[in-house]
Amino acid sequence: MAINAVVWGENVHEQTNKTVSDLYPEGLHGAIAKGLNADAGISATTATLQEPDHGLTEERLAQTDVLLWWGHAAHGDVEDEVVERVVRHVWAGMGLLVLHSGHFAKVFKRLMGTPCNLYWREAGERERIWSVNRNHPIAKGLPEHFELENEEMYGEPFGIPEPDETVFISWFQGGEVFRSGATWKRGAGKVFYFRPGHETYPTYHDDNVLKVLTNAVHWACTGRAQDVQDVDAAPNVPVSEALEPIEQRGATLHEEGEEGFR
Amino acid sequence: MAINAVVWGENVHEQTNKTVSDLYPEGLHGAIAKGLNADAGISATTATLQEPDHGLTEERLAQTDVLLWWGHAAHGDVEDEVVERVVRHVWAGMGLLVLHSGHFAKVFKRLMGTPCNLYWREAGERERIWSVNRNHPIAKGLPEHFELENEEMYGEPFGIPEPDETVFISWFQGGEVFRSGATWKRGAGKVFYFRPGHETYPTYHDDNVLKVLTNAVHWACTGRAQDVQDVDAAPNVPVSEALEPIEQRGATLHEEGEEGFR
Amino acid sequence: MAINAVVWGENVHEQTNKTVSDLYPEGLHGAIAKGLNADAGISATTATLQEPDHGLTEERLAQTDVLLWWGHAAHGDVEDEVVERVVRHVWAGMGLLVLHSGHFAKVFKRLMGTPCNLYWREAGERERIWSVNRNHPIAKGLPEHFELENEEMYGEPFGIPEPDETVFISWFQGGEVFRSGATWKRGAGKVFYFRPGHETYPTYHDDNVLKVLTNAVHWACTGRAQDVQDVDAAPNVPVSEALEPIEQRGATLHEEGEEGFR
Amino acid sequence: MAINAVVWGENVHEQTNKTVSDLYPEGLHGAIAKGLNADAGISATTATLQEPDHGLTEERLAQTDVLLWWGHAAHGDVEDEVVERVVRHVWAGMGLLVLHSGHFAKVFKRLMGTPCNLYWREAGERERIWSVNRNHPIAKGLPEHFELENEEMYGEPFGIPEPDETVFISWFQGGEVFRSGATWKRGAGKVFYFRPGHETYPTYHDDNVLKVLTNAVHWACTGRAQDVQDVDAAPNVPVSEALEPIEQRGATLHEEGEEGFR
Repeated sequence: MAINAVVWGENVHEQTNKTVSDLYPEGLHGAIAKGLNADAGISATTATLQEPDHGLTEERLAQTDVLLWWGHAAHGDVEDEVVERVVRHVWAGMGLLVLHSGHFAKVFKRLMGTPCNLYWREAGERERIWSVNRNHPIAKGLPEHFELENEEMYGEPFGIPEPDETVFISWFQGGEVFRSGATWKRGAGKVFYFRPGHETYPTYHDDNVLKVLTNAVHWACTGRAQDVQDVDAAPNVPVSEALEPIEQRGATLHEEGEEGFR
Repeated sequence: MAINAVVWGENVHEQTNKTVSDLYPEGLHGAIAKGLNADAGISATTATLQEPDHGLTEERLAQTDVLLWWGHAAHGDVEDEVVERVVRHVWAGMGLLVLHSGHFAKVFKRLMGTPCNLYWREAGERERIWSVNRNHPIAKGLPEHFELENEEMYGEPFGIPEPDETVFISWFQGGEVFRSGATWKRGAGKVFYFRPGHETYPTYHDDNVLKVLTNAVHWACTGRAQDVQDVDAAPNVPVSEALEPIEQRGATLHEEGEEGFR
Repeated sequence: MAINAVVWGENVHEQTNKTVSDLYPEGLHGAIAKGLNADAGISATTATLQEPDHGLTEERLAQTDVLLWWGHAAHGDVEDEVVERVVRHVWAGMGLLVLHSGHFAKVFKRLMGTPCNLYWREAGERERIWSVNRNHPIAKGLPEHFELENEEMYGEPFGIPEPDETVFISWFQGGEVFRSGATWKRGAGKVFYFRPGHETYPTYHDDNVLKVLTNAVHWACTGRAQDVQDVDAAPNVPVSEALEPIEQRGATLHEEGEEGFR
Repeated sequence: MAINAVVWGENVHEQTNKTVSDLYPEGLHGAIAKGLNADAGISATTATLQEPDHGLTEERLAQTDVLLWWGHAAHGDVEDEVVERVVRHVWAGMGLLVLHSGHFAKVFKRLMGTPCNLYWREAGERERIWSVNRNHPIAKGLPEHFELENEEMYGEPFGIPEPDETVFISWFQGGEVFRSGATWKRGAGKVFYFRPGHETYPTYHDDNVLKVLTNAVHWACTGRAQDVQDVDAAPNVPVSEALEPIEQRGATLHEEGEEGFR
């Protein structure tokens, strides 16, 4: 059965900037979804900021294996309730791919616990992306390096936690480097950040970029069948149900079986 | 010069529960600060929930090398503004030690990006803490294992990100295990979680526990002199100031030197 | 196409100890292979110390997706040439599962770069294995904890590098804990260590243990199609083939295109 | 008391290549030791391949807090016995800094368990080293980036295990990137790899490079007072000395208190 991928797009510059709408007549989200759907194992749809619940209702997220997130100008317009909903689905087992300027998206900052900041320059310079983790499933079938002739520069230090795995590092023509592909786990969910994707360049029409995203969707999908339920429960284990026989000793704050503080 | 440590205590059960106030007449925070002050290299003071700004004003945090956090019943009463202030100081370089039930403190959940949940049982059972990371500065001078005859049980799975380092793992009489000492870095700040410390037991009078906390204060202190300024800035690097000579190419969203979106 | 798994068994105590031969008439390797073959996606065969090349010729390893390694009394009898051969196949992309007393196997110590030592006790005590990494593919379908009523104890500190992922932690009746399931990557190959499996107990007839091993075979398999070739090559990139135009500057040790030192 | 640092130099090209001997009349090891000794907290001496035991006797290593290793043309001439001696001291608690072409040194490959290979080019091109880990003690007092106008290029993929911490990433004029500063722990010892240092360039006269090495010596020093003794011992814990009362059950291979297999 195909993996359910949802590509979330902010869909702002597509409406206001002719360069962007010319490059991406169906939106960046549309171009990404089209690229993913070229893989028979993926069924990708889109959601946007402007829809009710930003297109990310509880029902839809519950059926989403992997969510991709592209945002830039309107991070502040994303409702906190939807952010929390997304975060809880990641904790339960949904995969999350955060793209480019999504480094400052609420969902990413919320899951990382760090500022997620960086240096940047919009000069259309050359970016060369190096694979540093041999045989990583996200780099499968890609050359050891590939170029994007025109991209925005993002420069280190990138304000992220030490990645579980560093998959890609970028070289920029203007002299900077950047950890362009990195993975983390949050709860039961897998998270991947991928750097390229500035809206004024044709990055999401690049075969290598689409290959990375396709690979990453497969990598991030754990299936939702074995989801963690009640993702932040902190169950009390009564003395009488201890795995090894023990007896109650000393003073207690709680009555047997009482809820804990949160 | 001595390390400035501030021990933050929720100070609730000390006022409402005779077991707790008998064990800790100066509060858990008071007992911890007293233990730290036995080390000539540390100058520890206390702050509590009930003070204005919970005792954690901008001025005070700016002079704090390491903050210790003990909370339990009143996590929800900690003002979000103070939480953000603490988080930003960690990002800048302040050390943070999170103690026991602080696993559900807003500051810890905010920095981890995970649910931080666990199983628990309040049976006064025996806990044995094993050092698993040889020669780690936080375990310096401690035996390979030590016991707390009466403690609350916390059981895995513990809802944290994969630690940068696992320092201690606990064995519980009732059959559970727990990653009792773990480290992470967040921005420029070092974070350590240490499990023991239930308020109805004399844990913070235990020499080994105080040794761990003393070691951890030294470990977490980076000095504030080399603090990161403006912790979440994302500076634009104009084309004219690129480290390697490049020329502007392609379309741009931003004018030269303009602020980026957040 | 099924995953090619090879279960390597030392096959010593099976020949010399009646308890072991009664429990494992087809050898520990035979029992493990049988358990794996219950999964339609795996085709498992065996190899033993006593065969020429210990059953691990270049040809056989080249067709092996995942190698499982059980050894105990005869680590010293494994030829260094075969060890290097195994190590190079791991670097190229072969998965490796190291079982129980294999912590002291030459192949494991060689890949870890650490002493791999531990405390131990052969008392037939109860071991309880806790899953600490939610939704990890190796823990898929397993309960949060399971028991082995009779096992050898291994105790921390375990002399391994900080794992990439800690998947299982064991509780022992006699008071110890142990990181029982841990993963690392070495070159292009994935490595998993799994603790239980003492030869005088029926561990490899336990459904949960066989489930772990079956899951781990799937997890460790990257397919050999995208293997790294010439795993420790250090190719020179001539100035004339640099990705960005540069000119030769300063003194050199090597002539253009010459081999480097090793 | 000052940290005892020993700078090990292969001392081959200093004798055979005029460019090298002109740049480093006292050897690369001499220049590095001189740079370290500018710090009042470090007492650095040198050792070379040509001395008996390569200058690294058991007695000398026992008094060494941090060993620095520079080798290139003669890795194969380093005796295996000395390699094992160094490795065991690292496991016990000695710090180790591996420099530049030392990526292929026996001691480094032995401790990493990976091929440690890379791409390279000797073109005297510009290298720019970026600090990616804010406030890391090894990067203390350094700018966010610094340049070496002439260096050898090393390019990814670098065949190392996922670092515990990535501290520096290099940008090369010819289009490559490299993880230039990375840390690992092996046993009780801390290991740092630092990339720059080709012998035909004045790298070890550069203030920033010497600052990195000085910082790294402080970082890697744990003092030898709390060394792990008998670094690869695997002690038996007799049933009668179990921390929790247990009784012997089931069959055993070993007599009470017998040595384990290795």
